Amino acid sequence: MSKTTFVTKEQIEEIVKDFPTPFYLYDEEGIRKNAEKVKKAFSWNKGYREYFAVKATPNPFILKLLKEYGCGTDCSSKTELMMSEACGFEGHEVMFSSNDTPPEEFVMAAKMGAIINLDDITHIDTVDEVLEGHFPETMCCRYNPGGVFELGNGIMDNPGDAKYGMTHDQIIEAYKILMEKGVKHFGVHAFLASNTVTNDYYPTLAKQLFELAVELHDKTGADIRFINLSGGVGIAYTPDKEQNDILKIGEGVHKVYDEVFGGREDMKDIAIFTEMGRFMLAPYGVVVTKAIHEKHIYKEYIGVDACAVNLMRPAMYGAYHHITVAGKENAPCDHVYDVTGSLCENSDKFAIDRKLPKIDMGDYLIIHDAGAHGYSMGYNYNGKLRCAELLFTTDKKAKLIRRAETPADYFATFDFCGLTDKMNAEDLK
Amino acid sequence: MSKTTFVTKEQIEEIVKDFPTPFYLYDEEGIRKNAEKVKKAFSWNKGYREYFAVKATPNPFILKLLKEYGCGTDCSSKTELMMSEACGFEGHEVMFSSNDTPPEEFVMAAKMGAIINLDDITHIDTVDEVLEGHFPETMCCRYNPGGVFELGNGIMDNPGDAKYGMTHDQIIEAYKILMEKGVKHFGVHAFLASNTVTNDYYPTLAKQLFELAVELHDKTGADIRFINLSGGVGIAYTPDKEQNDILKIGEGVHKVYDEVFGGREDMKDIAIFTEMGRFMLAPYGVVVTKAIHEKHIYKEYIGVDACAVNLMRPAMYGAYHHITVAGKENAPCDHVYDVTGSLCENSDKFAIDRKLPKIDMGDYLIIHDAGAHGYSMGYNYNGKLRCAELLFTTDKKAKLIRRAETPADYFATFDFCGLTDKMNAEDLK
Repeated sequence: MSKTTFVTKEQIEEIVKDFPTPFYLYDEEGIRKNAEKVKKAFSWNKGYREYFAVKATPNPFILKLLKEYGCGTDCSSKTELMMSEACGFEGHEVMFSSNDTPPEEFVMAAKMGAIINLDDITHIDTVDEVLEGHFPETMCCRYNPGGVFELGNGIMDNPGDAKYGMTHDQIIEAYKILMEKGVKHFGVHAFLASNTVTNDYYPTLAKQLFELAVELHDKTGADIRFINLSGGVGIAYTPDKEQNDILKIGEGVHKVYDEVFGGREDMKDIAIFTEMGRFMLAPYGVVVTKAIHEKHIYKEYIGVDACAVNLMRPAMYGAYHHITVAGKENAPCDHVYDVTGSLCENSDKFAIDRKLPKIDMGDYLIIHDAGAHGYSMGYNYNGKLRCAELLFTTDKKAKLIRRAETPADYFATFDFCGLTDKMNAEDLK
Repeated sequence: MSKTTFVTKEQIEEIVKDFPTPFYLYDEEGIRKNAEKVKKAFSWNKGYREYFAVKATPNPFILKLLKEYGCGTDCSSKTELMMSEACGFEGHEVMFSSNDTPPEEFVMAAKMGAIINLDDITHIDTVDEVLEGHFPETMCCRYNPGGVFELGNGIMDNPGDAKYGMTHDQIIEAYKILMEKGVKHFGVHAFLASNTVTNDYYPTLAKQLFELAVELHDKTGADIRFINLSGGVGIAYTPDKEQNDILKIGEGVHKVYDEVFGGREDMKDIAIFTEMGRFMLAPYGVVVTKAIHEKHIYKEYIGVDACAVNLMRPAMYGAYHHITVAGKENAPCDHVYDVTGSLCENSDKFAIDRKLPKIDMGDYLIIHDAGAHGYSMGYNYNGKLRCAELLFTTDKKAKLIRRAETPADYFATFDFCGLTDKMNAEDLK
């Protein structure tokens, strides 16, 4: 297996005439093909909808693109709700999945007609109070089975240590209370493991949730309309691993769907929802950065013009992101480098002891799999500015979909004290 | 030992009438007393200057406050240079210490007359090119001794794995080249360990650097004017550890100064510089947040209205930050909680299994030692907004020193595409 790129050195050289490095570049064609495939994978389920996790890539151009494939949005905050609404997502096209939720955000979600996914049983009282008793007709509850979640292939996670969701007894109780409060239709939601790379995760989770749905229905009489499998279907960041096959995953969910609901006339047409951020976007976004510094001390360093401000995952988690040197795709990887950003943090390295082709100053490095949880986790440490996002359109042109920050943006929260009055206007741009 | 707070519940109740939680609150009195003490600790050295590491707390009000005590600024980027200049720091009051440096930032630093601290020998050519041969009269070089740095008490770090500085041979070579290029006065800089809590770190480092300075002087004839001990003097985040004693640290540096330079008529009046961020500010800033959610599942959770967006260290490093429940300072810590923020990240917890007094909804929690690398590491993940910074003045009033972000700020980089035109003006505020 290998990691290939969707942009060539020549194309990058064209792009940088208009947009200086570093920048995010998203592959429109890749996003579209993948979204089509996801749709196909669950086409057996007539109510299916992917609610794209806005937190992964909060960009209105990306959201609108996904909307063409029937996607909704999964929102976790006020600004994500605002962005969704401005992009034309309406009513049940929006899922509001939050925890430790500021009460006023329930009000905003309800006003938009979004589906509210309650993280905790105590939030029933909160919603009751802030919505003055006017519960939405359809609501969802988040389930946390506790304990340890294991898949055969060594993947495990600890739902019992996670702050999310309701216990088994709580979710039954929550359904009963919500029905008394006038809620008519229900969903169940759970998230048990992050970034799984196995075709078994969704089917395994689905079985648990389908069985829970049957129990909830039998015990409370609730009308269950959908099962939200949430996120967790990930991607392989390293080139040696096989990627998830969403068609197989869809089939796997179909199989357990038929097993559990097959004989139930009273539980028909239950919709499957997913909230994939990483799987929808991660492979279709890269950071393009330029080699600007070569350093030879106790190790060999290549300094680039991007840093952890642009992509934090390597510094924060030690995450592997594959790197291609544009134009040297087929050159032997016979050099060993640490690829560094400019933060005064030694963790600000995009790669450590990485075998790469010989890098020359001015080379463009393509940092893979940055399309999700990349820009969105950017910060301004060391006073560094977040870069632009570009869409590499199907006709191979770069289109600006988020401009780069300027010093004026960086100083915006000092606008009450005249700080920038003393600055050079040119420097602020 | 214990951790006490500088603000009472009653005072917080006054502050929240004007400024909603969460917010940063900085203790003016504490900052002043500590800055005075630092000045005193090095008063034996007539050229001494603390260059406050702007990256720790990039706030103009804080910078101006420290300026009253003779502090300069240690800048690592264009925006930090701009902020310093706007706050009235001039010439050698600014140290530009950067790595993998964008060439245009050398130009800006030189224009301001700042002292440029060169991280790498290859940067001599960069500076030569961008300054068209006009090297500043005074320059500094950063040293990296390689290997492992150990102090008797178990503190160690790996300079050999760090991307910073020049090797021993390189720094000698760099001095020679710079002298040929016309540089007349020199400094030496090194950073060997982060957040040390021992009175031995600076003296140990100082001895190495003083001896290096002698060698550099003897081998190159360079006029060495200052030794920059950089940062690394930290604070104890947990209440069980003894804090650094800056007076003892100053004495320790004095002692080795006399040992190494005592007999040298040709190396007199060498100034000591420091670049402390954490020690100058960390204990004098707190995050004040309100308990808004209480959750009982497999563990007991208290949800607050701050999250990792406001203070990332616990989520990023698993860092301990002490928590005081305002008004319950003397109550028994007979409850065990996870204190969580609202991000869709299970790492978004300010405390895990922490013994605290019983927390009631509406209680104010004071998160300690957030005055450095707190706000400055904030991000906007999940579309969350960064909060305000307030100065708790010596007369115990809260003064706004940075306003909270608004949704309009969050969407600012979409101003070219009309995104916010479709939004409600009230929601954007």
